[in-house]
Amino acid sequence: MATLTVWKFDNPTGAGEALGKLESLQKQQLIEIQDAAVVEWQPGEKEPKTRQAVSLTGAGALGGAFWGMLFGLLFFMPFFGLAVGAVLGGFAARFRDYGIDDDFIKSVRDQVTEGTSALFLLTVTGSAAVDKLQDELKGKMGSLIKSNLTNVQEAKLREAFGQENTAWRIGPRTLPPPAGASDEMRASIAETPQPDPAAMQIEPQSEAEWLAVIAQLDEGKLDMAREISKQFSVSVEHATIEGVNVYHVTPSEIDPKLEDKLFVHTHGGAFVLNGGEVCTLEAIVIAHLVKVRVLSIDYRMPPLHPAPTARTDVLSVYQHLLKTRPAGSVAMGGSSGGANLTMGLVQHLIELGIDVPGALFLGTPGADMSKTGDSYYINDSIDRNLVTYGGFVEACIRLYANGRDLKDPLVSPFYGDLHGFPPTLLITGTRDLLLSATARTHIKLRQSGVVADILVYDGTAHADYIGVIGSPESHHAFAELNAFLLRHLQ
Amino acid sequence: MATLTVWKFDNPTGAGEALGKLESLQKQQLIEIQDAAVVEWQPGEKEPKTRQAVSLTGAGALGGAFWGMLFGLLFFMPFFGLAVGAVLGGFAARFRDYGIDDDFIKSVRDQVTEGTSALFLLTVTGSAAVDKLQDELKGKMGSLIKSNLTNVQEAKLREAFGQENTAWRIGPRTLPPPAGASDEMRASIAETPQPDPAAMQIEPQSEAEWLAVIAQLDEGKLDMAREISKQFSVSVEHATIEGVNVYHVTPSEIDPKLEDKLFVHTHGGAFVLNGGEVCTLEAIVIAHLVKVRVLSIDYRMPPLHPAPTARTDVLSVYQHLLKTRPAGSVAMGGSSGGANLTMGLVQHLIELGIDVPGALFLGTPGADMSKTGDSYYINDSIDRNLVTYGGFVEACIRLYANGRDLKDPLVSPFYGDLHGFPPTLLITGTRDLLLSATARTHIKLRQSGVVADILVYDGTAHADYIGVIGSPESHHAFAELNAFLLRHLQ
Repeated sequence: MATLTVWKFDNPTGAGEALGKLESLQKQQLIEIQDAAVVEWQPGEKEPKTRQAVSLTGAGALGGAFWGMLFGLLFFMPFFGLAVGAVLGGFAARFRDYGIDDDFIKSVRDQVTEGTSALFLLTVTGSAAVDKLQDELKGKMGSLIKSNLTNVQEAKLREAFGQENTAWRIGPRTLPPPAGASDEMRASIAETPQPDPAAMQIEPQSEAEWLAVIAQLDEGKLDMAREISKQFSVSVEHATIEGVNVYHVTPSEIDPKLEDKLFVHTHGGAFVLNGGEVCTLEAIVIAHLVKVRVLSIDYRMPPLHPAPTARTDVLSVYQHLLKTRPAGSVAMGGSSGGANLTMGLVQHLIELGIDVPGALFLGTPGADMSKTGDSYYINDSIDRNLVTYGGFVEACIRLYANGRDLKDPLVSPFYGDLHGFPPTLLITGTRDLLLSATARTHIKLRQSGVVADILVYDGTAHADYIGVIGSPESHHAFAELNAFLLRHLQ
Repeated sequence: MATLTVWKFDNPTGAGEALGKLESLQKQQLIEIQDAAVVEWQPGEKEPKTRQAVSLTGAGALGGAFWGMLFGLLFFMPFFGLAVGAVLGGFAARFRDYGIDDDFIKSVRDQVTEGTSALFLLTVTGSAAVDKLQDELKGKMGSLIKSNLTNVQEAKLREAFGQENTAWRIGPRTLPPPAGASDEMRASIAETPQPDPAAMQIEPQSEAEWLAVIAQLDEGKLDMAREISKQFSVSVEHATIEGVNVYHVTPSEIDPKLEDKLFVHTHGGAFVLNGGEVCTLEAIVIAHLVKVRVLSIDYRMPPLHPAPTARTDVLSVYQHLLKTRPAGSVAMGGSSGGANLTMGLVQHLIELGIDVPGALFLGTPGADMSKTGDSYYINDSIDRNLVTYGGFVEACIRLYANGRDLKDPLVSPFYGDLHGFPPTLLITGTRDLLLSATARTHIKLRQSGVVADILVYDGTAHADYIGVIGSPESHHAFAELNAFLLRHLQ
């Protein structure tokens, strides 16, 4: 716990003198101050001068950004004028998170005025520093304004301003191919050149550039999809439903118990890739290994169609399907951006009062696109498929979001309500950039009373279960999906 | 795919000359050789001279360790004598994994003899190198011995010998406190100094040193356990069962549906820590949050009692309990080394034909103690509780193993059979050094037909669910355990 104390002096120099005493006490290790700053307001000046006690900056110091923001809020706000009002709203709200509330702000503004000075101290709650200083300054000091920060408030404060103190710098390390993965998966990883974040710094600047990059990244995938469909004897047939392009993907062998069931597939690709018949790539694998009919939706995507067009397309197809079959006979899902869309659709269905599918498959879901979650940091440059959040991945997300906040549930359905979701199977791996997104979604689903299972495959990156098709991981994952659908579809 | 080709020459210099040609062709980029080595056996010598073609060592080279091991197997084995026979058994078995089988070894040993020489080449299967060299050496060359390596065999080979090629060097990164964790968990992590692997380099060298280190590391824990039991109004009572020390840990509130059930607790602590009443630390939390009676076993530990004494103690207590209650009314488990012991006990029970418990709790289980699994590398120095495998953790494991192979199921129950296990709940986190061990155990349990659920908490390290008692993660984990017991105990 930390305490933020403000000592007010009735003249412009008192605070500076007190700081001098403090520094000498600190040097003698008689007191422990975490951080300090001084405000001096000379008579006749329009605003005070502020300075951080650099000599005290050591363990626990928050740094200039914190004091700058706090003093901006306390003393310089009127000068910002109306134009920044909206910014200041969030600004003040943020400080409330740190335990610096309206009362505190008002006290300071009322008392620290022209011709006075003030000393701001951040100390460990209950430490001797404040008592000692009170003794030293007997008689010289004016009133005292105090704000006790809870552990959580202090942590939030440090998180925002003291990153040099709370973030850990993880040194270089050697990562061998995962000995805990299957031979096939490990061989595939051992053959992969080390992921290179520099190669992911592609940020198209215009619609034309986007279309060119997308065409380049999707090159060869259609041949691959057709090759796989041939290899697995899976038939693929184009159709349109309510004006939306779809593909009927039918395996040569259908599980007798899934004969009258349908898997509605929303493909991945960061909301921009895998359009057209390429969308069937994952659908073919699902159809073959889960032994179920799949309907893959070629929803419209950016740059021509930002959010929420994709979701609207998926909704149209789903609603059409419900005319001829019960919702409980439909499973739905996909990987990455596709899992995001499936989650978003289910939230939309619940809002609209439409029956939800009987089961969901969320493969390494892009449930939180805001770079919140441990694995965005830990698995940066370790995930061989996504590689890193910054660069192309983030560019795709922002293109899709089209100006929306990345924590808007339409962009990141994790932040929406998950109550009422159908039984959900989630899949991730220890090298997945979206390991945290998947794990957090799983926990939140269970907290929302949803039947939810997660599978974590050792050594696997984002959607490796679909990337290394013949691997035991891939076979096991889709055998689990088959069992899950048998258990939950009606 | 790679091919290992051996060119045999009928004189001791032919191979060296051929290597010269090869190097010049490689320099002209006319051929691509991944690695090469030469064996020259002068007449009258007892053994050949071997050397690696250092000039070729580039992309794809396996390095001296591979050639040294291979040549040891091929030419120097007889000189090792009988004493190392057991070692050579595993040695040869390992090469079989790389596609270097008995026939290959026999051919080489029969043909490459005194007065001859041989050139060993590793090339990409189907590359022009072998054909080109055959043209160049027309007439000079003796017979050719070949071994085609599959992708998996090549990957295994590279994993063992070519770490510089297949392991990734992950650069430094900054890891902020986990934004996806609860405020309480994040505050706790933000307050934790960065984990320091150097501080973990404690390797006691004698029984006395071990006992001193254990006493030091366990200091204060008993007070903490008693403080928590007071805070939660949990009663703790010592007893002995079949000569084994145990503690009856009874919460103030018992779930009515768990009134006649019992949770048998095997405490963690890397098989050496948390002995005596300290073993109740986790048991008190479980009793309070799961609302169930707990019996915590203070099994005997190293350095005085290495494996399998701990398991024998646990077995004695369990068998005694079965005299008065059905196995289905007993849940069992613990964290880390405790989860390892519970897994080992269940394997032992199945071997002995004794009824297994009705449900298991495996918190971040030390299921694989052999440093196999991704998270031993990825989360090295990121897990704030275990920190790193090397040093103290490994020393504890080896002390407990007492000379056994670390993949012996008695040390690492992951390598034993998991069929017939009761329903099992597993818990881990994204910073857990044992994330992979937990995830792999979960998948293997499911593959063995066992009902098994896993929970992965974002940002949490080894056993943080027990370390940050008031956190939502801790509450959720034990609420899940409560629900799991209600579902599966009989």
